[in-house]
Amino acid sequence: MCEPKKPKRILMGPGPSNCHPSVLAAMAEPLVGHLDPEFLTIMDETQDMLRQVLKTRNELTLPVSGTGSAGMETCLCNLVEPGDRVLVCVNGVFGTRMADIVGRLGGELHTVEAEWGKHFEPDAVEAAVRECSPKVVAIVHAETSTGVRQPLEEVSRIAHEAGALFLVDAVTSLGGCNVDADGWQIDAIYSGTQKCLSCPPGLAPVSFGPRAMEALEARRTRVPSWYLDMTMVKKYWGADRTYHHTAPISMIYALNRALKVILEEGLEARFARHRLNHRALVAGLEALGLEMLVAEPYRLPMLNAALIPEGVDDRRVRKALLNEHNIEIGGGLGPLAGRVWRIGLMGHSCTPQNVMLLLGALEELLKAEGAPIRPGAQGAAETVYAEA
Amino acid sequence: MCEPKKPKRILMGPGPSNCHPSVLAAMAEPLVGHLDPEFLTIMDETQDMLRQVLKTRNELTLPVSGTGSAGMETCLCNLVEPGDRVLVCVNGVFGTRMADIVGRLGGELHTVEAEWGKHFEPDAVEAAVRECSPKVVAIVHAETSTGVRQPLEEVSRIAHEAGALFLVDAVTSLGGCNVDADGWQIDAIYSGTQKCLSCPPGLAPVSFGPRAMEALEARRTRVPSWYLDMTMVKKYWGADRTYHHTAPISMIYALNRALKVILEEGLEARFARHRLNHRALVAGLEALGLEMLVAEPYRLPMLNAALIPEGVDDRRVRKALLNEHNIEIGGGLGPLAGRVWRIGLMGHSCTPQNVMLLLGALEELLKAEGAPIRPGAQGAAETVYAEA
Repeated sequence: MCEPKKPKRILMGPGPSNCHPSVLAAMAEPLVGHLDPEFLTIMDETQDMLRQVLKTRNELTLPVSGTGSAGMETCLCNLVEPGDRVLVCVNGVFGTRMADIVGRLGGELHTVEAEWGKHFEPDAVEAAVRECSPKVVAIVHAETSTGVRQPLEEVSRIAHEAGALFLVDAVTSLGGCNVDADGWQIDAIYSGTQKCLSCPPGLAPVSFGPRAMEALEARRTRVPSWYLDMTMVKKYWGADRTYHHTAPISMIYALNRALKVILEEGLEARFARHRLNHRALVAGLEALGLEMLVAEPYRLPMLNAALIPEGVDDRRVRKALLNEHNIEIGGGLGPLAGRVWRIGLMGHSCTPQNVMLLLGALEELLKAEGAPIRPGAQGAAETVYAEA
Repeated sequence: MCEPKKPKRILMGPGPSNCHPSVLAAMAEPLVGHLDPEFLTIMDETQDMLRQVLKTRNELTLPVSGTGSAGMETCLCNLVEPGDRVLVCVNGVFGTRMADIVGRLGGELHTVEAEWGKHFEPDAVEAAVRECSPKVVAIVHAETSTGVRQPLEEVSRIAHEAGALFLVDAVTSLGGCNVDADGWQIDAIYSGTQKCLSCPPGLAPVSFGPRAMEALEARRTRVPSWYLDMTMVKKYWGADRTYHHTAPISMIYALNRALKVILEEGLEARFARHRLNHRALVAGLEALGLEMLVAEPYRLPMLNAALIPEGVDDRRVRKALLNEHNIEIGGGLGPLAGRVWRIGLMGHSCTPQNVMLLLGALEELLKAEGAPIRPGAQGAAETVYAEA
């Protein structure tokens, strides 16, 4: 029964990120039943901490028993009925995925598009909203496929002025930069555990505000998914404790622990840490001569898309990073495949040490590729840390 | 960061069951990326072992990223399109749940019912099939709400003679008694990890045979769930490795380990162990004067429903078992609420020691309740073990 240990990867891709050792230890705690009083306490605690991290008072705030994409499907399938008009803002993989799901639900899909790597200007969204008067406006806060951070306050105002629900994908942002669900008047929001929450993949925190709850209660049809039907799931997570499905106990132990780690660090300190390591990484990449895909004001701290220099073999470099340096970074998706690397600085993976290791390794590998790079990547990053 | 340890419960309810220590240890292994070559090897291995445990050669055999109910929804939402006639056999909670899902999918639902605690006679299913000519016949192999084992070979023959797909719920049976997916010509089957596979809850093994694959390819409409769409999920688990959603890495480590534990024990030895402990438990319960809900030939070894003696307080006894003896057993559901206890003997929880502990504790608690019980429960169980 002796097994080779899994490799200790430094996870600097688009997720999963590395976990705090106490989070991994929580995964291995002995199981209790999903209606055990001890477990119900952990559920309550987890919901309370999720509310703190999401900055919301929404009662319906809980981890869905699936990965981030299950969170996306949960928000859409509970709020979109056949024939409902939905405006999806598409500037990457995850906007595209939301649009796909709306189609499957029989919603009347409208999209507003921006180039991959660009954010949405409020004007563009406003024009689209005016044209289709949607029931829901859906947008991605942190587009993991491009590294774009989408400012949300103006879009929220536009959605609400048109009487629409405002639905936000915060899979990659939550726990790594400010996500203010109540302050930004977000009606429905979902995330995933394996990004800046630094918990293994397998749960999708979701939260529904009062307007979303009203829409849920006013449905003309049943939620098409039994598994993700919030009218039932909320009864298990609420005071009733009505059995719905067996909760993924160990994953909830781990999320509970990961949220404690986050709140012990403090949200603002955590966001500052992500910003600082991001600035150091970008300084190092730019010192090497690499260009960032996204314009500076709209860059995510936790997902950095750098253009791959001409003549460099994307796969060879990533393979060498993994095999020789034990570092995972991500490749590009869709139109960006082969054109960018996606470098994650998420949660427990977001450290000066990891930034330095990656910059050193990249410098070496790009030299080996014969790329016209400049030396001094680590020095440039060090300067950022020294000045901080 | 020091946390109180979770209580070490003896899990003898309807699931989750206790896990082998090496399975819990696998949960805590450091993460790798979901496209890491090391992880792809673990995926292949896991699929191969799942095929062995399911006794199938089906290529599409994989763990869905959700709990057992997500497996149910996966099988139904991939195979049932709006207007499709589906016959669901309902004799407990899980048949009821399948019927609910068929309705949500817009299928034309037909049911054949049996009393909770009874199995289906092939004749009854045959008559119902003749009446509705369904595309799918769906049935529960091991009804967790009652403890009924449903023989499947005749029902399979009836379904296929009518040209229907044969869909089976093996959530509670898989890994604890014979499940012969190919031998019984099952077209689609799902299970859960937290029962006799003795892995934490969070994954749902599913397998589709050639006829189910044909039905999937011949769909007129898209699968309504993006998350559970097997036409896409299979590309990640197949040779393409196309990114769909981030797999729950740690859960798959644990399932991989749990399947190794099962295959090292050997399927037949494992089934014999479940049968023996079941016989000992029943002998002990009957010695106490308790009656079993299900007739002997149709009892599941891993889920034992015993009638609660008159005058005994269901909740008080279960609470005392949990708080004083650290043993979890399940209460009844639906029409059986307050009428039965559901005693699980699943996977790693299925041991003579646990049988003895429970019988001793029950004897003591039933005496305290003033129930007219006979002594000697443990002795009766010991006799079964001695004769084995």
